[in-house]
Amino acid sequence: VTRVGGAEGLGLSGERFSVTYALAADEPTAREMAADICIEQTVEFPQDLIASRSIREGIFGRIETFRAAGSGEGFEAVVSYAVEITGYELTQLLNVLFGNISIKPHIRVQRIDLGATLAGKFRGPRFGRQGLRALTAVQDRVLLCAALKPMGLSAAELADLAGKFALGGIDLIKDDHGLADQAFSPFEERVKRCAEAVARANERTGGRCLYLPNVTADGDGFLHRAVIARAEGAGGVVISPGLTGFDAMRRLADDDEIGLPVLYHPAFQGSFVTSPRSGLAHGMLFGQLARLCGADGAIFPSYGGRFSFTREQCREIVESTGEPMEHLKRIFPCPGGGMTMESMDDMLDFYGREAVFLMGGGLFRLGKDLVKNCRSLLERVSGA
Amino acid sequence: VTRVGGAEGLGLSGERFSVTYALAADEPTAREMAADICIEQTVEFPQDLIASRSIREGIFGRIETFRAAGSGEGFEAVVSYAVEITGYELTQLLNVLFGNISIKPHIRVQRIDLGATLAGKFRGPRFGRQGLRALTAVQDRVLLCAALKPMGLSAAELADLAGKFALGGIDLIKDDHGLADQAFSPFEERVKRCAEAVARANERTGGRCLYLPNVTADGDGFLHRAVIARAEGAGGVVISPGLTGFDAMRRLADDDEIGLPVLYHPAFQGSFVTSPRSGLAHGMLFGQLARLCGADGAIFPSYGGRFSFTREQCREIVESTGEPMEHLKRIFPCPGGGMTMESMDDMLDFYGREAVFLMGGGLFRLGKDLVKNCRSLLERVSGA
Repeated sequence: VTRVGGAEGLGLSGERFSVTYALAADEPTAREMAADICIEQTVEFPQDLIASRSIREGIFGRIETFRAAGSGEGFEAVVSYAVEITGYELTQLLNVLFGNISIKPHIRVQRIDLGATLAGKFRGPRFGRQGLRALTAVQDRVLLCAALKPMGLSAAELADLAGKFALGGIDLIKDDHGLADQAFSPFEERVKRCAEAVARANERTGGRCLYLPNVTADGDGFLHRAVIARAEGAGGVVISPGLTGFDAMRRLADDDEIGLPVLYHPAFQGSFVTSPRSGLAHGMLFGQLARLCGADGAIFPSYGGRFSFTREQCREIVESTGEPMEHLKRIFPCPGGGMTMESMDDMLDFYGREAVFLMGGGLFRLGKDLVKNCRSLLERVSGA
Repeated sequence: VTRVGGAEGLGLSGERFSVTYALAADEPTAREMAADICIEQTVEFPQDLIASRSIREGIFGRIETFRAAGSGEGFEAVVSYAVEITGYELTQLLNVLFGNISIKPHIRVQRIDLGATLAGKFRGPRFGRQGLRALTAVQDRVLLCAALKPMGLSAAELADLAGKFALGGIDLIKDDHGLADQAFSPFEERVKRCAEAVARANERTGGRCLYLPNVTADGDGFLHRAVIARAEGAGGVVISPGLTGFDAMRRLADDDEIGLPVLYHPAFQGSFVTSPRSGLAHGMLFGQLARLCGADGAIFPSYGGRFSFTREQCREIVESTGEPMEHLKRIFPCPGGGMTMESMDDMLDFYGREAVFLMGGGLFRLGKDLVKNCRSLLERVSGA
């Protein structure tokens, strides 16, 4: 056999970050899986063929703890890695977290603990909960978000809706994530008209409603569109990192020229959370990764709507958006996907005030006058 | 209730593309799911609140066929969409394909039929099977690919391995996908040294081995690294679109200044194919999407190795890389993930000659002399 590696001294600091993996298997198998993760996510090479002690001790992942999962099903392993193997890049950090083992079933990433050094390489959310409250001047209730749709409306028609939402007291008005730069509603015209409509409404109401266009686009298009959005008076942006890559969201949040709040839409990412035993935990995706990548709010489908998340999964998201995570700001959970006036009591009870409620079709069902409908909703959540 | 939309005439051409969805449910439920997809993936709005006939007829998805799945389990619906709703962008095309419904279980994307107009917006693979054969001057056998690893080796050590692989007759030498720009093996030094080592070996052998560094990186880093790679004499690049976003792969392939073959690594994408009833079909991800995004070869874990793909799933990938898909070139399936000399007979029998075999640790197990090990493998596949 050919053994590799002899040189010693990789210049590692000894600082490590750790990842908690849920392993859905019996104990001997789960122990093997944990040991395998240490290799698969780092050297991806037969251990016995590696001669270098530096690599064995410094590069291999290391099992820090192994125990039965709190749920009683399966096991949980905390694996630590040298911070240097990430090269301090988001792409390679994601690779270490879940690159190859995403292809091995029955492994689920529960959480990451970055430590100060690695976390310090990421700016995180620019606004977070406090920042968004300051921008909208809403302190004592949930924030309300409405979506501009359906696709196929002209820029003028969408702007008309935006104006009504803003007059009705909605705090955040977002483009539907399917509004891109289609010929029937071109991005630039849409943004201009909608931002104007919201500004006019704000003048009348004295409110501070923000309009957030969807800037998801190919190439660097998401940056270009965000720059246009800023110039036209948009108050934030929406992006679907499942379509652009996670790093696009980080760049959007980090860009000082743009400097706008970022809402994270989960399009194309459902497969990460579909299986209870594989993929990413809900809190990992919509809480920890969202914050790492600079989102100020994470949109997800609430339990009780037309999607399939459970209360428990939504609870996990809420916790993960709000728990301490080094210097990374707390962000808003933004439940949506089928909220109605009828479900409002339950939603307020469950999510409390530290949330953005995203209502789409539900706002249109209440009556003929969309402005009034919005006011009813606002009244409903203000009383809570 | 408030109804929206009145303006007629969206300027749609009538051209449509279609997507085949597998629906794991009983017939009445599957029919509902198909109808729901038509709405969820387009207007995402209650149908009854949409007044516009143009939107109802032009924007809604349309069920073209609905039938029992060939497998006998569940149903299959072909849904068509107006090409214009993609805005001719990859991100929005992916969104229409599987954006919101990725969050609804028991829907699996089986295949896409783009039609000439939409396909024409994508250049696709620059080289494909024929192009890679021409570059490597290998016409009558499978191509061999080896990976530079383990992470932790210095640039000089990796270059030493690269030189030996090339002397031994390997056709493509790729960086392990975990080699990024870590301090212990910085990207630029590694590429320079490895490209040099391969060029020296090629001079000795008269061969045309290509070195493909991993350019997966944050921001536009993947482009910058590919430009460096080209300048230093690399013969191709590797990228993990699960980490960068799919569109990064397309940009890499489309960039005329770079103009190198692109190998697609599946890191972080396992969740799309983990569940047999949700996500993306194997052929969809590693065949159709790979080609749409410009990959010349798609790496995937073969059956029989340390991952979990079945023979049937691998067969689907092979077919999808090679079947007609408008003008998009046929690309190489690149099975790896635990190939050994012992499995070679079976692999050759299964994959035939139109493949790239990726062997990692297996090459080191054969004996002390890595060059000899490579020659044994080459001999083995050349005789086939």
